[in-house]
Amino acid sequence: MGEEIAGVQWAGVRGMSEQAVELLLIEDNTADVELTLHVFRKHNFTNHIHVVCDGAEALEWIFGAARDVARIPKLILLDLKLPKVNGLEVLARIKSDPRTKRIPVVVLTSSREDQDLFLCYELGVNSYIVKPVDFGQFTEAVRQLGMYWLLLNERPHGPEQSDH
Amino acid sequence: MGEEIAGVQWAGVRGMSEQAVELLLIEDNTADVELTLHVFRKHNFTNHIHVVCDGAEALEWIFGAARDVARIPKLILLDLKLPKVNGLEVLARIKSDPRTKRIPVVVLTSSREDQDLFLCYELGVNSYIVKPVDFGQFTEAVRQLGMYWLLLNERPHGPEQSDH
Repeated sequence: MGEEIAGVQWAGVRGMSEQAVELLLIEDNTADVELTLHVFRKHNFTNHIHVVCDGAEALEWIFGAARDVARIPKLILLDLKLPKVNGLEVLARIKSDPRTKRIPVVVLTSSREDQDLFLCYELGVNSYIVKPVDFGQFTEAVRQLGMYWLLLNERPHGPEQSDH
Repeated sequence: MGEEIAGVQWAGVRGMSEQAVELLLIEDNTADVELTLHVFRKHNFTNHIHVVCDGAEALEWIFGAARDVARIPKLILLDLKLPKVNGLEVLARIKSDPRTKRIPVVVLTSSREDQDLFLCYELGVNSYIVKPVDFGQFTEAVRQLGMYWLLLNERPHGPEQSDH
């Protein structure tokens, strides 16, 4: 993956309209952000990605988006070790708020600590992926999770869009 | 897929030791059960599958298994339209009990009603897949979900097995 290409992608998606965001990526590691954007673009999962690099910015974006159901992303990818507000706190806030609890949240982290796993599932995480150390395996994991959550999984629309 | 082969698989997994169950499949449609077993065996996801055909039997098995952490499955695949106790009630019971709420539950159903989607996510489902009508697409969906949840996703062990 060329860094230049990834850099352009990142700058591109950060500048797009927030109304069309399909993936909210909460990750402070630049290399991991670039790899994820590269995989999602290469496989046409979505170009509609918003990236935030710390937990405080994540909460600000999410609860801003929660005011408008059309802006709620299809998927949140969440790292646990984040500056300012850690990922567990971000997860707890998302899953305890009736406006945001139905958004699928996948934790993508280097931690395989049983305590982190236990707490994430207690808080209602949808899925938990440990980042493979190997570059090729990491790329494949991101490909699989993108395909699964953006192409196969179904999520509810807001109650405002329900027929019932 | 030969029915004879699928029949042997089904009979085989039903007779196995419950202690080693990795997938609990809650499905009353025999053809869907056979297809799922075929895909899981073909791709070596697991042979350790227990099948139950109605919601009452599912609850009995799950809350029997919950008494012994070693018997808790890695994944529950849940149909919604079930005899005796429907899938939403089974999901509600699993996700509201501290012994079972951390088990990943994937709903695999023919319903794409927004009300079902909304309620499943409200109750804490991990993922929701609509069964494709096309046989090939259904097979591929089952392959993808098996690979994702049994090979990629990490789940917590019980607190009894925690290092913390």
